[in-house]
Amino acid sequence: MKGKVYLIGAGPGDPELLTVKALRLLRTAQAVLHDDLVAPEILRLIPSTAQVYSVGKRCGKKRILQEEINFLMVALADSGLRVVRLKSGDPLVFGRAGEEIEALRRAGIEFEIVPGVTSALGAAAAAQIPLTHRRASSALVFLTAHQAEGSGSANWSKLAGSGATVVIYMPGHDYSAIAAKLRAAGLAPETPCAVISQATTQSQQTHRTTVAELARTPQLRAPALLMVGEVVRFAAASSLMREFRMTTGSQPAFPATLFADSPSDAATSQGNEEPSA
Amino acid sequence: MKGKVYLIGAGPGDPELLTVKALRLLRTAQAVLHDDLVAPEILRLIPSTAQVYSVGKRCGKKRILQEEINFLMVALADSGLRVVRLKSGDPLVFGRAGEEIEALRRAGIEFEIVPGVTSALGAAAAAQIPLTHRRASSALVFLTAHQAEGSGSANWSKLAGSGATVVIYMPGHDYSAIAAKLRAAGLAPETPCAVISQATTQSQQTHRTTVAELARTPQLRAPALLMVGEVVRFAAASSLMREFRMTTGSQPAFPATLFADSPSDAATSQGNEEPSA
Repeated sequence: MKGKVYLIGAGPGDPELLTVKALRLLRTAQAVLHDDLVAPEILRLIPSTAQVYSVGKRCGKKRILQEEINFLMVALADSGLRVVRLKSGDPLVFGRAGEEIEALRRAGIEFEIVPGVTSALGAAAAAQIPLTHRRASSALVFLTAHQAEGSGSANWSKLAGSGATVVIYMPGHDYSAIAAKLRAAGLAPETPCAVISQATTQSQQTHRTTVAELARTPQLRAPALLMVGEVVRFAAASSLMREFRMTTGSQPAFPATLFADSPSDAATSQGNEEPSA
Repeated sequence: MKGKVYLIGAGPGDPELLTVKALRLLRTAQAVLHDDLVAPEILRLIPSTAQVYSVGKRCGKKRILQEEINFLMVALADSGLRVVRLKSGDPLVFGRAGEEIEALRRAGIEFEIVPGVTSALGAAAAAQIPLTHRRASSALVFLTAHQAEGSGSANWSKLAGSGATVVIYMPGHDYSAIAAKLRAAGLAPETPCAVISQATTQSQQTHRTTVAELARTPQLRAPALLMVGEVVRFAAASSLMREFRMTTGSQPAFPATLFADSPSDAATSQGNEEPSA
């Protein structure tokens, strides 16, 4: 009997931001293929009996080709396993899921897509930035930095300069080049920006800046996001690096009941589940 | 002692697409203010001891003003309660959370934002539409239909005509007006579209069409979304209404362990948790 593939979004980083469905499927997976950017705390939820493959393709260093990922995924499902293809954020947003879906269809493998909290939403929640706002922005654009090159650059410029809130995924390290492109797209130098690194994890860092100052952004660890637009003014006044980390640290990262391995674990930890008021 | 407010995204509809954190907070809430569009299956997870207020403002029929919602939320937290403000999808995407955040800051009420799976991602996953695709679209735009009116219409037109995948939230009933605006924005009549109603719920319905035929879209129930762009061509061949509903129906909507009310419930249902391979 053939297995099945679940293309699952792991959310922005905090294991508690997995969906209930993603957690259930991850904990019953027989094989897991995951990207580099999935948080280690989430990978620890995979059962020890599962085959686990890291298939990241990070920063252009292609350790494994997309075709090889497709081949492995199909082969594992073909051998009858319940396979989880785990991607950070949401699988359908900059996740190459389109190509994997095509490969699964060609191979006649049953599959299901489980959406996740895309990184922009996790970062915005942590920084308290409303992505749309009646007085500041009524549209939202997701871009990547590398699209600013080549044939797509005209559209990138149009989108970035539209007045909508712009979230740039995978900004890379050349903020000076991005700043130049944002200026070329017509953005005022004082337009507020925020770079949010490892959003919703214990190591989250945030840097508030403007288009004019963007080039001086310190190097923050991947995954990072760049948010651009007037809504960034509404960010928490406390959105400095240190304070951010404190906020994240004060949350119970693993509610014992929900992540419990057995019903008896759940019983003993039930009383600790409530957040303090 | 003052209480705390949690601005929580309820996700696209399926209760299993709540995040683990949202579920934990919902089940320990002392007061809940929810929008009309939150699925009834999710509202049933609220403890019977909690005060529950429906504060929807649907289709322009303003039963309750934003100021009244803010006032109620602040008053409940001021009285020491742990308050959940529950919004469908993600709270920071077209959710008016910006105004509620300002009210909470003004009143000095502690709050936290819990991101959710925004409806576009839920709908795309259910319809198997990759929102970005190496060969079809490298950017993603979220708009609402009513922004197409008035002073924002020039930007709406630029965004809609950018070649990016466009998701229109709250399209309303006048698809003929939307079609005209998409044509005016430069979209070819054959551009594929999908209207997805009550995505990820048992009543999900999907209608595949094109910009040229969009005006003839049947009336589907709210909440609905309109997706426009070449990526819609990659949608599941089976994305007809009936077949969609079957797929949704075959998923175990409530994994017994995770939604169990007590550890003993969890123990008895543990064996049924696994999806069939």
